[in-house]
Amino acid sequence: MPLSDADKARLNRHLEMLAHYRETEVGYPVAFDIDYKLLVPYLGFSLNNVGDPFTSAHYRINSREFEREVMQFMADLARAPANEWWGYVTNGGTEGNLYGMYLAREIFPEGIVYFSKDSHYSVAKNLHFLGMRNIMIRSQPNGEMDYDDLRETIRIRRDATPIIFANIGTTMKEGRDDIRLIQEILDDMAIERRYIHSDAALCGGYAAFLDPRPAWDFADGADSIAISGHKFFALPIPCGIVLAKKSHVDRVGHSVAYIGTRDTTISGSRNGFTVMGLWYAIRSFGMEGMRKRLEKAMALADYAEAQFREAGIEARRNKAALTVVFPQPHESVCEKWQLATADGIAHIVCMPHLTKQQIDALLADILTTQEATAGAEA
Amino acid sequence: MPLSDADKARLNRHLEMLAHYRETEVGYPVAFDIDYKLLVPYLGFSLNNVGDPFTSAHYRINSREFEREVMQFMADLARAPANEWWGYVTNGGTEGNLYGMYLAREIFPEGIVYFSKDSHYSVAKNLHFLGMRNIMIRSQPNGEMDYDDLRETIRIRRDATPIIFANIGTTMKEGRDDIRLIQEILDDMAIERRYIHSDAALCGGYAAFLDPRPAWDFADGADSIAISGHKFFALPIPCGIVLAKKSHVDRVGHSVAYIGTRDTTISGSRNGFTVMGLWYAIRSFGMEGMRKRLEKAMALADYAEAQFREAGIEARRNKAALTVVFPQPHESVCEKWQLATADGIAHIVCMPHLTKQQIDALLADILTTQEATAGAEA
Repeated sequence: MPLSDADKARLNRHLEMLAHYRETEVGYPVAFDIDYKLLVPYLGFSLNNVGDPFTSAHYRINSREFEREVMQFMADLARAPANEWWGYVTNGGTEGNLYGMYLAREIFPEGIVYFSKDSHYSVAKNLHFLGMRNIMIRSQPNGEMDYDDLRETIRIRRDATPIIFANIGTTMKEGRDDIRLIQEILDDMAIERRYIHSDAALCGGYAAFLDPRPAWDFADGADSIAISGHKFFALPIPCGIVLAKKSHVDRVGHSVAYIGTRDTTISGSRNGFTVMGLWYAIRSFGMEGMRKRLEKAMALADYAEAQFREAGIEARRNKAALTVVFPQPHESVCEKWQLATADGIAHIVCMPHLTKQQIDALLADILTTQEATAGAEA
Repeated sequence: MPLSDADKARLNRHLEMLAHYRETEVGYPVAFDIDYKLLVPYLGFSLNNVGDPFTSAHYRINSREFEREVMQFMADLARAPANEWWGYVTNGGTEGNLYGMYLAREIFPEGIVYFSKDSHYSVAKNLHFLGMRNIMIRSQPNGEMDYDDLRETIRIRRDATPIIFANIGTTMKEGRDDIRLIQEILDDMAIERRYIHSDAALCGGYAAFLDPRPAWDFADGADSIAISGHKFFALPIPCGIVLAKKSHVDRVGHSVAYIGTRDTTISGSRNGFTVMGLWYAIRSFGMEGMRKRLEKAMALADYAEAQFREAGIEARRNKAALTVVFPQPHESVCEKWQLATADGIAHIVCMPHLTKQQIDALLADILTTQEATAGAEA
């Protein structure tokens, strides 16, 4: 049965509107510079990677083989120990973080989760979901965890295993918790049992290419890591990956007769299309292409910060970050440019598709509304 | 950067293989009879319906308006009470079931979950995840819950609120728990506080069109319902919907400044593409078209059951079910036809795209391998 002409027209109007909104989207860490049209034929199949990607499944309409390659690339990015890691493609950052916390709970049921005030709003939701004890730690002004507060808070609870939820790029300021420093703090207190999860939703896509490299990955001490696929990798559908030390995962595996696979995932039925998207991005760009995309984005962040400051707007930015933070502008500007705001600040995330023209136009709008407001107040 | 020719060739080989496997896929409840190519332009956008679909969001590249229409259609299918329901498009049945159990736990933290032995393997996983007390109930031979066992099990625990996880179509046999009967059992024991979740992953797509209508929806007493989108609705990407009474959901809502929306979902970032797919299916087919798809599928199930029995194979089938169960055939047949097996049985699920030719070919393969085995044994 075909769609009615009226409905077709409605789809076209929606698509036109989306194209318009895409031009003024500078506030969220999505990217539009990878063209996934080669994957269109996959929409003709009910691709489903149900269960563990590293085992075979009865249901053959899947992309498990490609998923294993994606995970190998990600494991390399995150310096996972050879043959001692496991992971899968998730439906997004939240699922990866939920998975990391789930593993931590299974291993240390009596542990306490420590996470900073600047963590993504889903963290508290996830911990409530899993019924885990948790304590919020103060943040530094740049969005990074306040390590002194962390140390003092853990010091008086040394009997409970600390589970650290580290942000590798906070939502508002792209603050990055230093997991080497966190390990030193724990070493210093002679706390050996510990679990560290890296929420690298944004920065995990490019942290490996930064110099100096942030302390975020397995070699730095992480037990599990979540990275988003619809951010730096520009997937048009929310997705992500989660990686964890294999020994942790073995604790939660169950043999499941029905699907002929060992189900260690959260989702069960899993998206095989986004797997193909990640594979496509990785194979098209490779490490070198990804590095170049990052350089382009970083140059734009340099530009944006400089232009804003030159115009008298107090823009701030963490070292080698794509996120430029500035005082929350007029509501009409936030609306038009889809700016996320919190506590009086707004930000732009300089993803690889953004242009100087967009930065200039946003800045012009901010200055115009400032003048109008100043004029009205005068 | 373009994909290399070798990689392009690899994609083509994969697509050819998938097309081949699609011809012999009769064991899983996926469908291939809806062509979603009109949605291809949406792959050019990072569509994200983050948060509650019934509120607005700062991020404009979304399909929330269409999601609300999808949910209205589903609410009508499930006879949800007007203005007293809420729901969203999920990443699949597991997320919807997890959500239903999450709501139940928030309302009755001390409740006990009862679910039958024939429930999907993810149920036990979900309950462990949420830390909920639970008891498995015996099943009847047809896959339906053993109501006597349910009654006796609850009777000795009348102090704990019962949370019933009802299957509306079990994985192997399409057994349907009767939630009216379950309510009568609870009424009979004067248990007023209760929660009933319908896992209608498969049957939710067409239960409303069956006559007599199974007892599965809100009018029958459900508090929440999960339905898959990649089953009867033929979406090429795993997805689903979850519906719940609005008053239940209000208990878990949190105001979240960052995304400018109230986040009552599990996922956070949410797939806007599958929303468009569900909308497309609903608008193309409507209630009447969906009913016709069901009639076609049901006629094929009649045919399959009759042909199998005529050939001397003990095929069984629940009343008005699309699933035909039969003794597990030779391993080579299970491999070729991607048959899910458990406890010595296999099944075919007569989804709308399946043909008599496929049924005939499968049956011929079963008979051939039976003869070969009999010959070898003689």
